[in-house]
Amino acid sequence: MTYCVGMMLNRGLVLMSDTRTNSGVDNISVFRKMYSWSVPGDRIIAVMTAGNLATTQAVVSQLEERTKAPDERDNTLLKAPTMFQVATDIGRLLRATIDDRQAANGHQGEARFSASIIVAGQIAGMEPRLFMIYPEGNFIEASWDTPFFQIGETKYGRPILLRGYDRDMSFEDSVKLLMVSFDSTLKANLSVGLPLDLMVIENNNFIPIHQYRVTADDPYFNAISSSWGDALKNAFHSLPDYSFKSEQG
Amino acid sequence: MTYCVGMMLNRGLVLMSDTRTNSGVDNISVFRKMYSWSVPGDRIIAVMTAGNLATTQAVVSQLEERTKAPDERDNTLLKAPTMFQVATDIGRLLRATIDDRQAANGHQGEARFSASIIVAGQIAGMEPRLFMIYPEGNFIEASWDTPFFQIGETKYGRPILLRGYDRDMSFEDSVKLLMVSFDSTLKANLSVGLPLDLMVIENNNFIPIHQYRVTADDPYFNAISSSWGDALKNAFHSLPDYSFKSEQG
Repeated sequence: MTYCVGMMLNRGLVLMSDTRTNSGVDNISVFRKMYSWSVPGDRIIAVMTAGNLATTQAVVSQLEERTKAPDERDNTLLKAPTMFQVATDIGRLLRATIDDRQAANGHQGEARFSASIIVAGQIAGMEPRLFMIYPEGNFIEASWDTPFFQIGETKYGRPILLRGYDRDMSFEDSVKLLMVSFDSTLKANLSVGLPLDLMVIENNNFIPIHQYRVTADDPYFNAISSSWGDALKNAFHSLPDYSFKSEQG
Repeated sequence: MTYCVGMMLNRGLVLMSDTRTNSGVDNISVFRKMYSWSVPGDRIIAVMTAGNLATTQAVVSQLEERTKAPDERDNTLLKAPTMFQVATDIGRLLRATIDDRQAANGHQGEARFSASIIVAGQIAGMEPRLFMIYPEGNFIEASWDTPFFQIGETKYGRPILLRGYDRDMSFEDSVKLLMVSFDSTLKANLSVGLPLDLMVIENNNFIPIHQYRVTADDPYFNAISSSWGDALKNAFHSLPDYSFKSEQG
């Protein structure tokens, strides 16, 4: 499994992904799932991937290859005029990659090679944008009504995002929120695992202002993980007490 | 979907279930998913069901019919000598009910008629016991290492259960914990819905000491739902702040 979150804030975009891949619980590895391409002053594009690792690595490798020789190729992260075009291209590439594997493997390949991708970024002169691309190659875009996307193991970490998210929050608070969300997910699903990758993209600043890998011995993440248990217990005890008498039906 | 939790405490068993059933989002109904049979002084047995409604209602109706004429029938909730026997019988009944539908509908029936059941109860002279029955008819039993079972939409409400559960907790606190867990689930999945059914079974007390239906206008549930958001925000702000400088990799 995988857990990735991409979040829009007033001040920019914040992305976090885990690195665990597994093919059964007896075959676990660490692979990066977050990639970015930056042209200072012009654009920054970041992607996070979930799903079949061969598929997502093939997509990222093709994206990477295209950026190496942008003059010789048509569709490239570095030349697309809008983020919508970027998402369209990546969606087409994802669909083609999955199709290719399915064609070679028949019906049984339909679910096996599936993958989804979060695309975030900004091109100079335009707003930052956040997309989620489905295995079918189509995609949806975040708005202030739905300002974050999750892919992979989304459920355990979702309640705290729904409660804690605020579009005005500082980058520091958004990172804290993501750490709590990831901690809840890690505690419940072994197929999501450390280290975590973090990237913070400020509006109109086309290089990431913060990139960080959270490892198992990270003091901040460990402090969050241990104090969140206590904080939740305090929160729980601060709630009004249930009484059998007054409520009895 | 559905959400049901059965929980073992030192002082007894606590069960909560939602009542929403759906066949698509355009066909939503309210059906009870919690049933119990009690013989004062001798035994109490409660079941909660998730999955195909026709399957679970058929199982419960058969259980109910057997209790009406226990002298004429072999396997009955009211005569089984142990809770293990009760779980075995219910498992067999569940498997037979699903098999019957699959036989009548061919391959396409395999997943459609599936269901799972939580069984909780106590027979005089023995410990209270808690089981989770799979669609295959086999089952597992809770222990102090894994003292609660969830069926249906289990993920959204799991992190708070993992953090908040304590086998020594009072019944009142366990109800508060379940209300928070259900509130998180309701907020995230429309196919889990109010009203909620609650049952509290004290050790060696073979009638429920508390039964209650939480409706949409329940003041306690609404207080929990609204104050939990604030309590979580306070808990979040009580955590150490992230700093870009000290952590930068």
